[in-house]
Amino acid sequence: MVDHHEFYRDKRVLITGGMGFLGSHLAIELVGAGAEVSVLDAMIPIFGGNEFNLEPVHDRVRTRVGDIRDAELVEEMVEGQDLLFHIGMQTSHVDSMTDPLWDVDINCRGTMNVYEAVRRHAPECHVIYAGTRGQYGVLRSSPVTEEHPMSPTDIYGVNKVAAEQYGFVYGRAHGLRFSSLRVSNTYGPRHQMKHGKYGILNWFLRLAMDDATISLFGDGAQKRDYNFVDDVTEAFLLCGARPESTVGEAFHLGGGRPSTLRSATEMVITAAGSGRYELTPWPGERKAIEAGDFVADHSKFSQATGWRPRVEMEEGLARTVEYYRRHKQHYW
Amino acid sequence: MVDHHEFYRDKRVLITGGMGFLGSHLAIELVGAGAEVSVLDAMIPIFGGNEFNLEPVHDRVRTRVGDIRDAELVEEMVEGQDLLFHIGMQTSHVDSMTDPLWDVDINCRGTMNVYEAVRRHAPECHVIYAGTRGQYGVLRSSPVTEEHPMSPTDIYGVNKVAAEQYGFVYGRAHGLRFSSLRVSNTYGPRHQMKHGKYGILNWFLRLAMDDATISLFGDGAQKRDYNFVDDVTEAFLLCGARPESTVGEAFHLGGGRPSTLRSATEMVITAAGSGRYELTPWPGERKAIEAGDFVADHSKFSQATGWRPRVEMEEGLARTVEYYRRHKQHYW
Repeated sequence: MVDHHEFYRDKRVLITGGMGFLGSHLAIELVGAGAEVSVLDAMIPIFGGNEFNLEPVHDRVRTRVGDIRDAELVEEMVEGQDLLFHIGMQTSHVDSMTDPLWDVDINCRGTMNVYEAVRRHAPECHVIYAGTRGQYGVLRSSPVTEEHPMSPTDIYGVNKVAAEQYGFVYGRAHGLRFSSLRVSNTYGPRHQMKHGKYGILNWFLRLAMDDATISLFGDGAQKRDYNFVDDVTEAFLLCGARPESTVGEAFHLGGGRPSTLRSATEMVITAAGSGRYELTPWPGERKAIEAGDFVADHSKFSQATGWRPRVEMEEGLARTVEYYRRHKQHYW
Repeated sequence: MVDHHEFYRDKRVLITGGMGFLGSHLAIELVGAGAEVSVLDAMIPIFGGNEFNLEPVHDRVRTRVGDIRDAELVEEMVEGQDLLFHIGMQTSHVDSMTDPLWDVDINCRGTMNVYEAVRRHAPECHVIYAGTRGQYGVLRSSPVTEEHPMSPTDIYGVNKVAAEQYGFVYGRAHGLRFSSLRVSNTYGPRHQMKHGKYGILNWFLRLAMDDATISLFGDGAQKRDYNFVDDVTEAFLLCGARPESTVGEAFHLGGGRPSTLRSATEMVITAAGSGRYELTPWPGERKAIEAGDFVADHSKFSQATGWRPRVEMEEGLARTVEYYRRHKQHYW
């Protein structure tokens, strides 16, 4: 990784969802770079929050268990921050369909609380929003660029678009310094391993490590662009450290080497050294929200920040297996 | 207008916002066409709800004062309906910026209640959603088509996009029969005349009728596409009556003869026979959310339904002035 001391030393940084997958990686790197890190995490059981994720820096991070829907708490946490990584949101496609009002409540109302708090209490703070490939919906052209229309296939995707657009509206109207980084399929250490509602590759890895059978829907031929979490963490750090080229902009990441879900699953099984897979028909409720192939052209972000994905899947998967072998009791 | 008896006779139709501007026009036409009309309206003071709007049909419409945020009430009203015109939403660009959470609450959460109720209690019901030109934001190409990207300039626009997209997501996932009709600037009788937060032409008409001075921001050269309310009402009725070509689709309307705000204002003053205008600098908070020119290509909707705008501005304005002269005490 780039040495981030120069930019982040003594910077005050808040991470929503900071005990989760991506949030905890960011917290660890930021502490390493000399930043003063605060974490707000709702620790909603089904989400990815896990105290153990912050274990390496637990005494150097100010953590607070609380919800972005609590406007007063958000104001208190936001005050005086230089950067804010907004990652703590509802993340399950499937749950957004069974409980859409819950998704609206967290992802729309909660996010609005975050931006309002910044506008009122930290107007110079740079907000970096974790967007998602789900904002695009079914691709009309591939590889996708940031100009692609956004027609999500599920409520989660719709609200992630809205929450991103609130940020750009606040940028134009109130001068909010806002960037969005739409992430694709990310995998790696510190992801929750208890269910497969999101983070498909990590879930498959758990099944393989348990020597269980992985069910692939359909023919498993849908293409995906995977990123190892270290590359994504680096992308967020660069996005925050290069405001002159990232404020007011939306970007997406991509792995540079898309593969079918089937071949990714085969790599997972190889990395785990156990497990198997079978092809099964699509369940109706999944098929209805399936967005199909996703391959991303990440050149806009690379040009803006110099970022490129560095960790190949074989290596990323091996490091992930090793992590969970060592720390299984905290994740299984 | 087309004779709508053939399609609407004995149809059960619910209109949210049915005591407001467009909603009341729809209710009156639908009663005339033999439909069984129910109206749900929150009668929030700043909105356009006005009992007098329904005066011509008050004994032939089931009206209920209540809010789409009340999920139980929405369920009760939705049950058994054949069509639902969803028009009752927060409509002020400016208020969405000063109280964004209120806009989220009504337009996102309230709308979700509507679709959820349809999904559970009236799965065959055709929902026609009143979208807005505000969904597009600043136009990158003109005249705009329905494929134009949606980058709204205010929170109102963002949430109108979200509320529309919920409908299409429900269409794919749950079979919701959903259409969206994005309306441009509409004017005519039955619009609220108490403030200028939306419905600019009606507001200018009030100022002119009061022999007051109309302030145009900037040079007044921004182009707009105006529709007389009878044409818009006809469009909604056609959208409901032609499900074979409208379900699953988004359309917009347009006047076919765009004019600058300045020349529209001159027509308003001529129609009123009084008033004057002046040019004043943009207030900052308005400039920040101003979307600039808006000219729409309505050919997609015309091809689907045969609709075209029929009422020229001179005639529409004259009819509007006449209405308010007669019924001033109910609107001033």
